[in-house]
Amino acid sequence: MAVDEVSSRTDFMRVLLDRRILIASGVPGVYGRGAAFDDVIARVQALIDVLSRRHGAERVSFPPVIPRAVVRRTGYMENFPQLCGSVHAFVGNDDKHPALMDRVREGGDWSEFVSQTDVVLAPAACYPLYPSLTGQLPEGGRLFDLCSFCFRHEPSEDPARMQSFQIRENVRAGSPDDVQRWRARWMEDGKELLASLGLPLKLDTASDPFFGRGGRLMKANQHAQELKFELLVPIWSEAQPTAVASFNYHQEHFGHVFEIRTATGECAHTACIGFGLERVAIALFKQHGLEPERWPAEVRTRLWP
Amino acid sequence: MAVDEVSSRTDFMRVLLDRRILIASGVPGVYGRGAAFDDVIARVQALIDVLSRRHGAERVSFPPVIPRAVVRRTGYMENFPQLCGSVHAFVGNDDKHPALMDRVREGGDWSEFVSQTDVVLAPAACYPLYPSLTGQLPEGGRLFDLCSFCFRHEPSEDPARMQSFQIRENVRAGSPDDVQRWRARWMEDGKELLASLGLPLKLDTASDPFFGRGGRLMKANQHAQELKFELLVPIWSEAQPTAVASFNYHQEHFGHVFEIRTATGECAHTACIGFGLERVAIALFKQHGLEPERWPAEVRTRLWP
Repeated sequence: MAVDEVSSRTDFMRVLLDRRILIASGVPGVYGRGAAFDDVIARVQALIDVLSRRHGAERVSFPPVIPRAVVRRTGYMENFPQLCGSVHAFVGNDDKHPALMDRVREGGDWSEFVSQTDVVLAPAACYPLYPSLTGQLPEGGRLFDLCSFCFRHEPSEDPARMQSFQIRENVRAGSPDDVQRWRARWMEDGKELLASLGLPLKLDTASDPFFGRGGRLMKANQHAQELKFELLVPIWSEAQPTAVASFNYHQEHFGHVFEIRTATGECAHTACIGFGLERVAIALFKQHGLEPERWPAEVRTRLWP
Repeated sequence: MAVDEVSSRTDFMRVLLDRRILIASGVPGVYGRGAAFDDVIARVQALIDVLSRRHGAERVSFPPVIPRAVVRRTGYMENFPQLCGSVHAFVGNDDKHPALMDRVREGGDWSEFVSQTDVVLAPAACYPLYPSLTGQLPEGGRLFDLCSFCFRHEPSEDPARMQSFQIRENVRAGSPDDVQRWRARWMEDGKELLASLGLPLKLDTASDPFFGRGGRLMKANQHAQELKFELLVPIWSEAQPTAVASFNYHQEHFGHVFEIRTATGECAHTACIGFGLERVAIALFKQHGLEPERWPAEVRTRLWP
């Protein structure tokens, strides 16, 4: 990224914080949100509500922590160990408490005093859904609509790359055909939705940040098989635009791990589509300015009908 | 708790899961939520919205992870080390990845491969707010309205004692008088709100689960000074009712730690009030039955006006 792009990003972040659109926490990528920011997100969610209902999705929700077994069984910890947040807690007694307190008061790392719990932070909204689908799907498969706070350990000064952020997802489980046609339709719907908010967009194939040397092949495979598409907005840079939505075809991956079968008994295929809600909001503030009451009339009418 | 109370709780949980009002994750206290459960929570939130606006609270929100420095500086880690969830992540390279993977595949504890990050799970919605208030408050102080997913590491089979759950809070910072009068008014408002939903209630002084032998004095002090009140509903048992809302006066605690001053330059006092949203929803399902469309007319009119 060119120097002037980084500097424009830094300036923009400063203004977001000055106006309390976002609230600094002292940790990069972890921000409080003022009423204006949350209102934009709520209005974008309302537009996604309409699309999700049109597709016939069933609403469910999950907390921001999920069983550790899910990241283990799905290979998430294998493929993205650098992003996964594991949750650890003190299970000691009075005898160990004073030593822990000394460490805490020094401001030091208290790892050695805590034990791993049964949960990790959700890396995406859909992960906890798949284990609940074990068994046979009804004729035509199933569709779900869900949203949760996700965590990825990638501290960054880029306000569009938060560590803790909300992904609004829809998920489809069924036959390969049903799942792929559904994803294709959502790519159109998602593009239309965000274009109607005045965001300049590009749809492109993409890959996930698989870890290490071994990850290169996985990334190449994702691109080659068009398993992942992203909607990109040039928030800071035309050359390195930011993904604000993704459309992911998992093939048999989750169906195999969690033994999800179609109505005809085959291993179910799954796909998910997701909107990075904070990224969409930041793209809107960057594109249209810091005062939503001054955004273009057609965007305002869409968001606040 | 008597045997028949535990058995009634277990039976009720089974029904909640059978009807997919809640969705089991395999970890006690971590549940997905069906549309009916989330709808009840959304409607209770709408009623709290009205009260929060009447009190003049400003809306803000924070993610479910907060800076580790906040639990260190506020003494949370000192007083409740058993409840706090610390977040740890793998920061190694390709060399360490295979050993981590072996551990993960065995299903073992992967603590030794991860390092402590700068964040912990939020133990209450209000914790990340206080550091953002450093400095001088305006005349009359400030009021905030916020909600977030909180985490407390206390695995339990009681559906009303989740590990990951939402607290809707209001927070007041200002002079001791302002803060105490505000809390007293919210105790009335909160009681009236929940009573209007047909819940049998009792308001009582309470204490937080301070850790270990040293915690006893803290608990006794909280009771004696009436720093904490709770609204209790006999969900499973008259003898051990469940707290569904709490009203907490922190005196100078947060003002001192984060250097928050009143308009006249004194150390600000703070108080917070919080509704345990999942507990309120479970109390309603237990009190009125599993089908909200059959709840008493006056409760339905209040929730779905």
